[in-house]
Amino acid sequence: MSIARKILLVILDGVSDRPIEGKTPLQSANAPNLDRIANLGINGIMDTIAPGIRPGSDVAHLALLGYSPYEVYTGRGPLEAAGIGIRLNEGDIAFRCNFATMKDDIIVDRRAGRIRDTMELTRAVQDGVQLDVEFTFERSTGHRAVLVLRGRGLSSHVSDSDPKHEGTPSRIIEALKPEAQKTADILKEFVIQAGKLLEKHPVNAERIKTGKAPANTILIRGAGMKPNIKTFSERYGLKGAIIAETGLVIGIGRICGLNHIEADGADSDIDANVRSAIDALKDHEFVLLNIKGADDASHDGSAEKKIKFITKIDKALKPILDIKNALVVVTADHSTPVSIKDHSADPVPVTIMGPGVRVDAVRVYDEINAATGGLNRIRAIDLMPILMDLVNRTKKFGA
Amino acid sequence: MSIARKILLVILDGVSDRPIEGKTPLQSANAPNLDRIANLGINGIMDTIAPGIRPGSDVAHLALLGYSPYEVYTGRGPLEAAGIGIRLNEGDIAFRCNFATMKDDIIVDRRAGRIRDTMELTRAVQDGVQLDVEFTFERSTGHRAVLVLRGRGLSSHVSDSDPKHEGTPSRIIEALKPEAQKTADILKEFVIQAGKLLEKHPVNAERIKTGKAPANTILIRGAGMKPNIKTFSERYGLKGAIIAETGLVIGIGRICGLNHIEADGADSDIDANVRSAIDALKDHEFVLLNIKGADDASHDGSAEKKIKFITKIDKALKPILDIKNALVVVTADHSTPVSIKDHSADPVPVTIMGPGVRVDAVRVYDEINAATGGLNRIRAIDLMPILMDLVNRTKKFGA
Repeated sequence: MSIARKILLVILDGVSDRPIEGKTPLQSANAPNLDRIANLGINGIMDTIAPGIRPGSDVAHLALLGYSPYEVYTGRGPLEAAGIGIRLNEGDIAFRCNFATMKDDIIVDRRAGRIRDTMELTRAVQDGVQLDVEFTFERSTGHRAVLVLRGRGLSSHVSDSDPKHEGTPSRIIEALKPEAQKTADILKEFVIQAGKLLEKHPVNAERIKTGKAPANTILIRGAGMKPNIKTFSERYGLKGAIIAETGLVIGIGRICGLNHIEADGADSDIDANVRSAIDALKDHEFVLLNIKGADDASHDGSAEKKIKFITKIDKALKPILDIKNALVVVTADHSTPVSIKDHSADPVPVTIMGPGVRVDAVRVYDEINAATGGLNRIRAIDLMPILMDLVNRTKKFGA
Repeated sequence: MSIARKILLVILDGVSDRPIEGKTPLQSANAPNLDRIANLGINGIMDTIAPGIRPGSDVAHLALLGYSPYEVYTGRGPLEAAGIGIRLNEGDIAFRCNFATMKDDIIVDRRAGRIRDTMELTRAVQDGVQLDVEFTFERSTGHRAVLVLRGRGLSSHVSDSDPKHEGTPSRIIEALKPEAQKTADILKEFVIQAGKLLEKHPVNAERIKTGKAPANTILIRGAGMKPNIKTFSERYGLKGAIIAETGLVIGIGRICGLNHIEADGADSDIDANVRSAIDALKDHEFVLLNIKGADDASHDGSAEKKIKFITKIDKALKPILDIKNALVVVTADHSTPVSIKDHSADPVPVTIMGPGVRVDAVRVYDEINAATGGLNRIRAIDLMPILMDLVNRTKKFGA
């Protein structure tokens, strides 16, 4: 009759899918450890936001952590900023940026040949651009960067310059509300000045010489202010940690006050990440482990790759079966069907294993069997309350 | 192809649980009649409020009767007052009180040795205390009493004096909003005067002489005003009755306009209560029968006692199988896991048996099987609309 004290939330990013020739990748993969977890736990399907709503990874993770994205989500810029460790102040506006390649005013590559080393280019922009407000421009992973504007009278109500498609000019940044005109003007000025600095930068001269796309312009999107979020410890009284590969997910964790733990291996070393997560349970009451990879395979449209990756995840998850006195939740942030190479609104499977759960008859971890489980159909926003109840940290409503 | 005309709602208080060594008490108990009801009915699991929200008995019963506790719940005082038959007027403030034992300003027993006969003490307080407003002080069951203040300018925004734990002084009653200062001052005065009267009362002198804890002070909590509730007949057009053991549940029934029927046996005689409930269906269209006992066993942490009590309930429910032309609902107001000795948010099983229901494949009445039934997962607030539809008293939305 023990009661679980801790929570390990494992998010298999985009693992959930639709059937391909009759079977989803989870059904096709040989995954004895996932099946064992389903067998020992209570299962269900979960709408990350609501039936039919396609969740981005950002809003999905907010909901999984119990924060209503409709209340707290302020755009992707602030999350990306938090992901690389920038602390936003009240009134700051953060943007996601891409280094991109422009030729004759047309965006010919939105990722500048998937450039990886943007250190010098970023420094040139940060040091060379002169604006009427303070700003921070920092590199993120790959071709990505973050811009933060700081000063009086700024607004996040500006449109993106990123055209989303290649072969068209970048979009003109517009004020979506009158009070955002100043911000729009500053952004335009930033893009012009940065473009001039990048165009003549030796790194780009070198790239052109070696046949690579030059990172000669910056695309801007995802304007947002600091979200008003109570930290995890304020909200739940839990000391929490996050282990994840992607900056965005790390950023969400940081914004919610979770400690970001770097695994003792490469970012994509799943075994190391699982070990670190189990280890983190020693001095944290809540650990979120995001395992990327299945999602990437889906975005690439490869069922084979996805099935193979699920097998790999399954092997890495084996030590989780030995965890004692903690709830283990295995779920996904959204479905990413191989057939559409993008997120979908299909509900995700969810299993809760550990002391106190009402074990059901489900024996296999997949989307179809999950739907017959004891949780029936829940929403991600309900997951944390359910877990908090199971670890006996919930206050009664009424008497 | 008949249609049910009446509804019997049987609430097995706190019967729902978590597995103990693999089985919940409902699974462990031999309960052929409950199983027969599940077999003949449609089954599901039900969140009394919402997933992960732990319901008190009061808000749970409000939701089961179709009233949103978020809209109508005003605190436990008014429900306790209604339970002992006090009718509140607009503007009255009601409180739950405990007779307690204080020594050197420390509360040493919050229930004054579980005193039972408080008749004389209550009368002494009612007759002896002089306040600037009208008040009613009446005994409830055991050590409990109800205080109602009546007059202009009163407010329910005052803090409790009940410290909830023993070994500390009572709390200072404070105004939680400026307009509540008068009420706070009156309550403090009440406690002081009542304390003086109780201290020197012969009943307490006698208790001390026989080694019992004197009821020498009064603890106050649960301030609330009359809830704004449409009666059951206004809301549903149903004449309703309630049969229950606890004052709080009876109070909720009364506030909703249900006739309180006293069973022709002791309060805790389940057989008599079941007979009275079936009998009440003759001249009522809706009868709520609350069976206490399983909840008490859980609060005591005794699985054995709970299993035994479920067997007892099951025997008493046998006559229910002979009811014709009525819907019989068997559910719980909340889970009370033996493992945590308190309410939890785990959903409760719910069965609806009677003409018109879509009988499913569930053959056993328990939490695990219920989750596989035809109702899937519903909320208590949806139960009355579902029942009203089955008895064909629902108006169409649209055309």
